Amino acid sequence: MIIVMQTGVQEKEIQQVVTRLEEVGLGVHLSKGEFRTIIGAIGDEKIVRAMGLEALSFVEKVLPITQPFKLVSREFQDENSVFTVGDCTIGGDQVVLMAGPCAVESEEQLLEAAVGVKAAGAQILRGGAFKPRTSPYAFGGLEEEGLKMLARVREKTGMPIVTEVMDQHTVGLVSEYADIVQVGTRNMQNFYMLRELGKLNKPILLKRGLSATIEEWLMAAEYIMSGGNHQVILCERGIRTFETYTRNTLDLSAVPVVKHLTHLPIIVDPSHGTGSWRWVPAMSRAAVAAGADGVMIEVHPHPEKALCDGAQSLTIEKFTNVCHQLEQVAAVFGKHIKKVTV
Amino acid sequence: MIIVMQTGVQEKEIQQVVTRLEEVGLGVHLSKGEFRTIIGAIGDEKIVRAMGLEALSFVEKVLPITQPFKLVSREFQDENSVFTVGDCTIGGDQVVLMAGPCAVESEEQLLEAAVGVKAAGAQILRGGAFKPRTSPYAFGGLEEEGLKMLARVREKTGMPIVTEVMDQHTVGLVSEYADIVQVGTRNMQNFYMLRELGKLNKPILLKRGLSATIEEWLMAAEYIMSGGNHQVILCERGIRTFETYTRNTLDLSAVPVVKHLTHLPIIVDPSHGTGSWRWVPAMSRAAVAAGADGVMIEVHPHPEKALCDGAQSLTIEKFTNVCHQLEQVAAVFGKHIKKVTV
Amino acid sequence: MIIVMQTGVQEKEIQQVVTRLEEVGLGVHLSKGEFRTIIGAIGDEKIVRAMGLEALSFVEKVLPITQPFKLVSREFQDENSVFTVGDCTIGGDQVVLMAGPCAVESEEQLLEAAVGVKAAGAQILRGGAFKPRTSPYAFGGLEEEGLKMLARVREKTGMPIVTEVMDQHTVGLVSEYADIVQVGTRNMQNFYMLRELGKLNKPILLKRGLSATIEEWLMAAEYIMSGGNHQVILCERGIRTFETYTRNTLDLSAVPVVKHLTHLPIIVDPSHGTGSWRWVPAMSRAAVAAGADGVMIEVHPHPEKALCDGAQSLTIEKFTNVCHQLEQVAAVFGKHIKKVTV
Amino acid sequence: MIIVMQTGVQEKEIQQVVTRLEEVGLGVHLSKGEFRTIIGAIGDEKIVRAMGLEALSFVEKVLPITQPFKLVSREFQDENSVFTVGDCTIGGDQVVLMAGPCAVESEEQLLEAAVGVKAAGAQILRGGAFKPRTSPYAFGGLEEEGLKMLARVREKTGMPIVTEVMDQHTVGLVSEYADIVQVGTRNMQNFYMLRELGKLNKPILLKRGLSATIEEWLMAAEYIMSGGNHQVILCERGIRTFETYTRNTLDLSAVPVVKHLTHLPIIVDPSHGTGSWRWVPAMSRAAVAAGADGVMIEVHPHPEKALCDGAQSLTIEKFTNVCHQLEQVAAVFGKHIKKVTV
Repeated sequence: MIIVMQTGVQEKEIQQVVTRLEEVGLGVHLSKGEFRTIIGAIGDEKIVRAMGLEALSFVEKVLPITQPFKLVSREFQDENSVFTVGDCTIGGDQVVLMAGPCAVESEEQLLEAAVGVKAAGAQILRGGAFKPRTSPYAFGGLEEEGLKMLARVREKTGMPIVTEVMDQHTVGLVSEYADIVQVGTRNMQNFYMLRELGKLNKPILLKRGLSATIEEWLMAAEYIMSGGNHQVILCERGIRTFETYTRNTLDLSAVPVVKHLTHLPIIVDPSHGTGSWRWVPAMSRAAVAAGADGVMIEVHPHPEKALCDGAQSLTIEKFTNVCHQLEQVAAVFGKHIKKVTV
Repeated sequence: MIIVMQTGVQEKEIQQVVTRLEEVGLGVHLSKGEFRTIIGAIGDEKIVRAMGLEALSFVEKVLPITQPFKLVSREFQDENSVFTVGDCTIGGDQVVLMAGPCAVESEEQLLEAAVGVKAAGAQILRGGAFKPRTSPYAFGGLEEEGLKMLARVREKTGMPIVTEVMDQHTVGLVSEYADIVQVGTRNMQNFYMLRELGKLNKPILLKRGLSATIEEWLMAAEYIMSGGNHQVILCERGIRTFETYTRNTLDLSAVPVVKHLTHLPIIVDPSHGTGSWRWVPAMSRAAVAAGADGVMIEVHPHPEKALCDGAQSLTIEKFTNVCHQLEQVAAVFGKHIKKVTV
Repeated sequence: MIIVMQTGVQEKEIQQVVTRLEEVGLGVHLSKGEFRTIIGAIGDEKIVRAMGLEALSFVEKVLPITQPFKLVSREFQDENSVFTVGDCTIGGDQVVLMAGPCAVESEEQLLEAAVGVKAAGAQILRGGAFKPRTSPYAFGGLEEEGLKMLARVREKTGMPIVTEVMDQHTVGLVSEYADIVQVGTRNMQNFYMLRELGKLNKPILLKRGLSATIEEWLMAAEYIMSGGNHQVILCERGIRTFETYTRNTLDLSAVPVVKHLTHLPIIVDPSHGTGSWRWVPAMSRAAVAAGADGVMIEVHPHPEKALCDGAQSLTIEKFTNVCHQLEQVAAVFGKHIKKVTV
Repeated sequence: MIIVMQTGVQEKEIQQVVTRLEEVGLGVHLSKGEFRTIIGAIGDEKIVRAMGLEALSFVEKVLPITQPFKLVSREFQDENSVFTVGDCTIGGDQVVLMAGPCAVESEEQLLEAAVGVKAAGAQILRGGAFKPRTSPYAFGGLEEEGLKMLARVREKTGMPIVTEVMDQHTVGLVSEYADIVQVGTRNMQNFYMLRELGKLNKPILLKRGLSATIEEWLMAAEYIMSGGNHQVILCERGIRTFETYTRNTLDLSAVPVVKHLTHLPIIVDPSHGTGSWRWVPAMSRAAVAAGADGVMIEVHPHPEKALCDGAQSLTIEKFTNVCHQLEQVAAVFGKHIKKVTV
């Protein structure tokens, strides 16, 4: 940590900071430049972060040197984490396709979607039973009934399922059914829920918060990992900006940045990331070309009748075309999309 | 709702939309302009929102005409809502000052803060017992023990307390102690918790989400109100932008906009809104001048020893100065700060 | 244009709007719904935009139906525009690589860069002679001397050059030397300069403004085209968001959106878009996979000695690797990178 | 400057950085912590900024310690700058009101506006002769004819005028007529124009760029001052965010931040800052309460007939009310609005 003092700081003020740092066992490195006195605090930055030195009027700013995350970082583990779900692996040389409807509406709808996306090349079925909705008057999901439908469709198709949990007290319920438990964008900083997920022994798909920095996102992953569950899959799904042609701005640079900083797999959700089926094929291809370990795409057999997010859902036909393209893009990078043959 | 069709749309495609609208009981108003065919859907917009018409390739966009919120709007209730908390009223001709430490650290610290802010002019004591923290390694609050300290300090000082709830399952616990239950920025869209708060008969202080639009914020209030609890106090606390000199960008224009759209009171939190004690006095004055019904300010007897957010906390002395200024600004608008005399 | 009236609007207020619309020759379509009266104005939306109807207190909002741009739109021209520069074409089935140093520093540096990027596969040489710099104390470019170096290196290597113009009064000078005239992000709305560029008969590379919406960007292109020069190449180069790991957030969704709305070619600049050489290879691949007609990459023979933006420049070796990957990604979409063989 | 090295950096890589710093005459302070080696560079930070050390793969990041601006900073000049325009002073104990139409449309319109705003309490007349417009089809201003009208109305009313310049080559022309030369938001980084303005001996009103950080804005002021003209008035006018209820988000925290960092006066433009006349009164009051040295407000005798930005213009009557309120708010802070009595 570097503590930058105000210009005109007095000797006793410098000493006050030095003494506080030494009291908590940190090494101190004092440097008086032409314009500024700066104090380097050597040791655990967590201690300095908690000290609130910016509250002192003669301290101008406190600059961190190291990252605030540990377990997620490449410094903790250099080689890529690879997790196994059903027949496929995430984080290695496969590109994983997760697809399915935004919300589970009925078993028929879900099965039709599952059969369609599986034939097209998807390995994992997505579908929401608990739906966070901006309006209290909108369809909120079938809840446990939806989870049961997911389980029955898994049995019929052999596809593992990924579905969202919205609350720490339903973590137990959702994880009974789900193969991958999804944390939605609005819950990325639901810290009690993250702690609960840290006790599971199952992959967690952690969506980036709508306006979360990459650092905050990785700190959310750190919450889960610090609880003991190291199976975290990150999912970029668009951030909020001023642009309105797309619902969000899909931040694909997050892919190489995350790959550089962490050992965790990262997938991309171009459906929520753009908000319209029109932009999904292009952004799916771009995600894979940027190095993502997979994509998660909303597919509905009849998007114009969907109870939720029909505007951003692909038809099964359009999704099939996307799969063909992704296969070829993956091949450029020595990756492949595993054929499911049950 | 206005449905704008793509250029070159065919007659049968127009008919398909018209038929679907009529099937759900909506009136239809067709208008063929030089460049575009547009279809007006007359009736409840909630129905159209749920139809997913954008999923049709020949629909260009769907434009809402009315606001998606009802109960919070001035159309539902024209006169200002005024809520009573302890001796004071919020939403009328008083400017209410809520002050206290970010986190409850100990009964001594809390009492010292309470006595200080009360003497300076604050009516309501703030203090967090449950603290959402970006890092799993940071101080997370004293939880129920903290709530008890708040209750004891209320008894000693007569100040009503506002404190945060982080989870629908602790709504009961927190509301036992709190006079105003606070929803933090990260939980503004924790919809299950909002529904639970809708069952209370107590004012809810609803902070704006870090990147929530005003519309989404009002929809969160609508959740609470649609559950039966009409006592919602909105709290602007800064939005996320590219500027880094301040931690967030305090969006004071939200004050007149909210006053125009809704009948609910709105207060401003300049401490989180700016992230540094340096900018709090100026922005407190600006908030009151913009028409806010109150401000919520972090005050710590010893900010440089705070376990949380010391950098943005005022000392009691600085807060006292701010109170004097706010009194004068309030007077300009025919408002006043109620003297507490217990 | 749809004019939405306030609730409780009076008949004479509605008439006032209707009369004003009819006075300027527009058709009027009145619709009184349960909650709102709306007035459709039929005819040229430019006229309504200029009327300032929002200034009337009984008008709630004015919603545009059509796009404000004409010449750039697919409605004006459906097939893709393809421009020829030197040996290659932009906007068709080639992926064009523009590469070179941020700033022209010396003829030696420029020639070394040009020879290197040409061997790697680039068709067009970039290099700035006029450099907009945030600080008045930073290197501002070699100006006309730099243009002459560009011309001499073009002669030696056969590579067409793209270089930036910063001012309408140097449009003449720059266009004497440049094969493509570049408009930088800070000048996207330098309207006098855009008008001047509209008089040229040369391709213009129009970078997106740092916080320009896609609509504003296309309106800037409309400025150039309305002056008579229809050769506009759009260039996405990152927008400003809250994320700080990357200098800007490269908005790749702009590629499919622009392709949908306009007939103009679009290329991507991942160097400015991300601000670090580390993220350039991944984002170049993603750009091509998203459907971009080319990429523009900063390459410096010795980035650590660059006078400008060394941090985001690739070495020639790294650029060569990127070219190999781009070739393969292009092939997936039936595109190719033209081999230059002079 | 602090250079943070990658983990696992080698001794010879550290030496390479140390040697380069020493070669350019900087002092070096080496500190090897448990997790990171950091190198402090002591001396002029401008030199380090220009070195591009981030281009080295073993350098993680380069952190500045001092501000990049000099002449604008309180370190260069501690006491507030106060400039005289006509009868009033800007930056001292007056709150200055600049008001008038967005665009000069005719001498009648301008005179009517001027007489009205002067009677209400404004000291300075605003009005645009050169208008930057997003659309090439919109009214672009009367240009020199407009400047002449401004001069004639100044003669008739005694009010000094502030008007915008859009190009370095018209700086001479505009400054012949204007008492204060305005730089619009789109030209904040038109560096050639800034240099030209640096040669004038007249106050410059420098609007903040739509997405400019405070630091970039102050660097633009530094451009003007480094050319010799120290009379720079900063003007906050809203930044671009995701919120759409207001056209921009007026960043009032910029007022105390700018006052802390610089000695320059700062005024606020709530008309462009919010985009609607509805929010202008509240935000004007808030601006003065936050400590602004003045406000700039668009006033039109007949907003609903304005050729430009009618939606955000106050009528003379509404402006008169605002003036009364601002007078009282100013008085709270020991400031006053100078009565003009010609």
